[in-house]
Amino acid sequence: MAASILVVGSVAFDSVKTPFGEAEEILGGSATYFSVAASYFAPVRVVAVVGTDFGDKHVEIFRKHKIDIEGLTRTAGKTFRWKGEYGYDLNEARTLDTQLNVFETFKPVIPEQYRSSEYVFLGNIDPELQLSVLEQIKRPRVVACDSMNFWIKGRLDAVKRTIEHVDILIINEAETRMLADEPNLVRAANKVRAMGPETLIVKRGEYGVLMFNGKSIFGAPAFPLEDVFDPTGAGDSFAGGFMGALAHAGDVNERVFRRGIVFGSVMASFNVEQFSLNRLTNLTRAEVDERFRQFKALTHFEEL
Amino acid sequence: MAASILVVGSVAFDSVKTPFGEAEEILGGSATYFSVAASYFAPVRVVAVVGTDFGDKHVEIFRKHKIDIEGLTRTAGKTFRWKGEYGYDLNEARTLDTQLNVFETFKPVIPEQYRSSEYVFLGNIDPELQLSVLEQIKRPRVVACDSMNFWIKGRLDAVKRTIEHVDILIINEAETRMLADEPNLVRAANKVRAMGPETLIVKRGEYGVLMFNGKSIFGAPAFPLEDVFDPTGAGDSFAGGFMGALAHAGDVNERVFRRGIVFGSVMASFNVEQFSLNRLTNLTRAEVDERFRQFKALTHFEEL
Repeated sequence: MAASILVVGSVAFDSVKTPFGEAEEILGGSATYFSVAASYFAPVRVVAVVGTDFGDKHVEIFRKHKIDIEGLTRTAGKTFRWKGEYGYDLNEARTLDTQLNVFETFKPVIPEQYRSSEYVFLGNIDPELQLSVLEQIKRPRVVACDSMNFWIKGRLDAVKRTIEHVDILIINEAETRMLADEPNLVRAANKVRAMGPETLIVKRGEYGVLMFNGKSIFGAPAFPLEDVFDPTGAGDSFAGGFMGALAHAGDVNERVFRRGIVFGSVMASFNVEQFSLNRLTNLTRAEVDERFRQFKALTHFEEL
Repeated sequence: MAASILVVGSVAFDSVKTPFGEAEEILGGSATYFSVAASYFAPVRVVAVVGTDFGDKHVEIFRKHKIDIEGLTRTAGKTFRWKGEYGYDLNEARTLDTQLNVFETFKPVIPEQYRSSEYVFLGNIDPELQLSVLEQIKRPRVVACDSMNFWIKGRLDAVKRTIEHVDILIINEAETRMLADEPNLVRAANKVRAMGPETLIVKRGEYGVLMFNGKSIFGAPAFPLEDVFDPTGAGDSFAGGFMGALAHAGDVNERVFRRGIVFGSVMASFNVEQFSLNRLTNLTRAEVDERFRQFKALTHFEEL
């Protein structure tokens, strides 16, 4: 049995428009994408908040993937809503509307039975809340953390205080440069790692991922797809596949991390093929492994 | 002895400004970068034109690399000049000035002893001139070709007539989408391959390369560098390393192509470390092979 993963983040209803279609008030949020992706590899526990409009059909998706939602609090009010659109450049979302609703006063309380979770993922929420989660956890084995430009720009000190206690930081390229105040990505990565995280994973959208870990750098392209319908949740699906693979392996080393990067890329590539979680909730483990093998075929070349 | 490579392209004096410094009237041009990079792998023959301002010290660089310059014509007038600058985003050059000079009336004539060259690279020149080169060559084994947005926008029919006769097209991402009139890169690549080239190599600057070859796709990241001084000539250094590795291998198959992509990426990564050809002219073959091994370390992960 793989060790359990705790994720703290958002559960949301998203309205998304892309050049290929649109969808209204579909299930989304960082904790949702993360936990469904991770559920293919290890047991997952969610701490998040939803409103009274969060119904049985939404709960059902978590149940289907055997995700523990003891920590999913239902509060008077409406669930967090996000509305955004993508142009042909699917790397960048334009936010049209954000309604925090019950998320505005979210103070994550970690249920007693979650406090010994060995693998912890701090989704993209207020860095002070991320730190408050860590204070409630007993001796986690691996803590990974997401953040975003909004916090780096507006709450830099809090971000720095939080990532000091984090093993793995997972952010995108622009956020890496912003956090380090350095245009060259390799130098920026070194500066960010000096702030605390032993490992930095830089997400580059359709260009894949770079992992900086000790003296080693690992680069993986994104899986080239003919149909990309909706990139929403790609980063969290990546993090879910990555942390899932780590928890499943039960070991913490470069080999396991690299495999995690590829499983993360696999889950992200499935996620973007359809709106919301439609593809991610209908996978078999055999399909996941098959795409891992396709990644190997995509990147393999012989040694000298 | 590896088979010979024929390159037809430009020899130029470049004036380049980057955030890290500037250089005036330094040796450049597609044929120059290509031939120096390829010279580490196989004998190279150049067809290009220069003016009377092209002096002995410039000829010396070609001689140092044993590049055959029988086909380098000296004509009354000045050598082609390009002036450009790069911002912190080193992926895109801003052209400040172009003086075609002797290049304006360039009509490549392939010397008799070059006509049986087995490997041919058509640098980024007028597509009709590229085609005229092919008409002068006897049964080449592999023909690769570069082009650019300027020709695709202004001379689409001529570009299509030329690439119909080409085995490998090497262009960047935006050019691929423009040529195919299709935003999705995988679909665009399929459309471009249907125009003639069996293999399409898509250059993505600091994000590396994707090769579409039959049903196979190969992706390689760019080598992450702490110091990128001048990206001028990266694409041609890539093509030089790629074609050099092909000619050296003497075989045409997926394994050789993938190795060629990595050697091309190696040469491009060295090229951008200094202005002009300063790094590319001072390499040892051992350094080239060492960086190839570093690429393997950068991208390797274990199979399932």
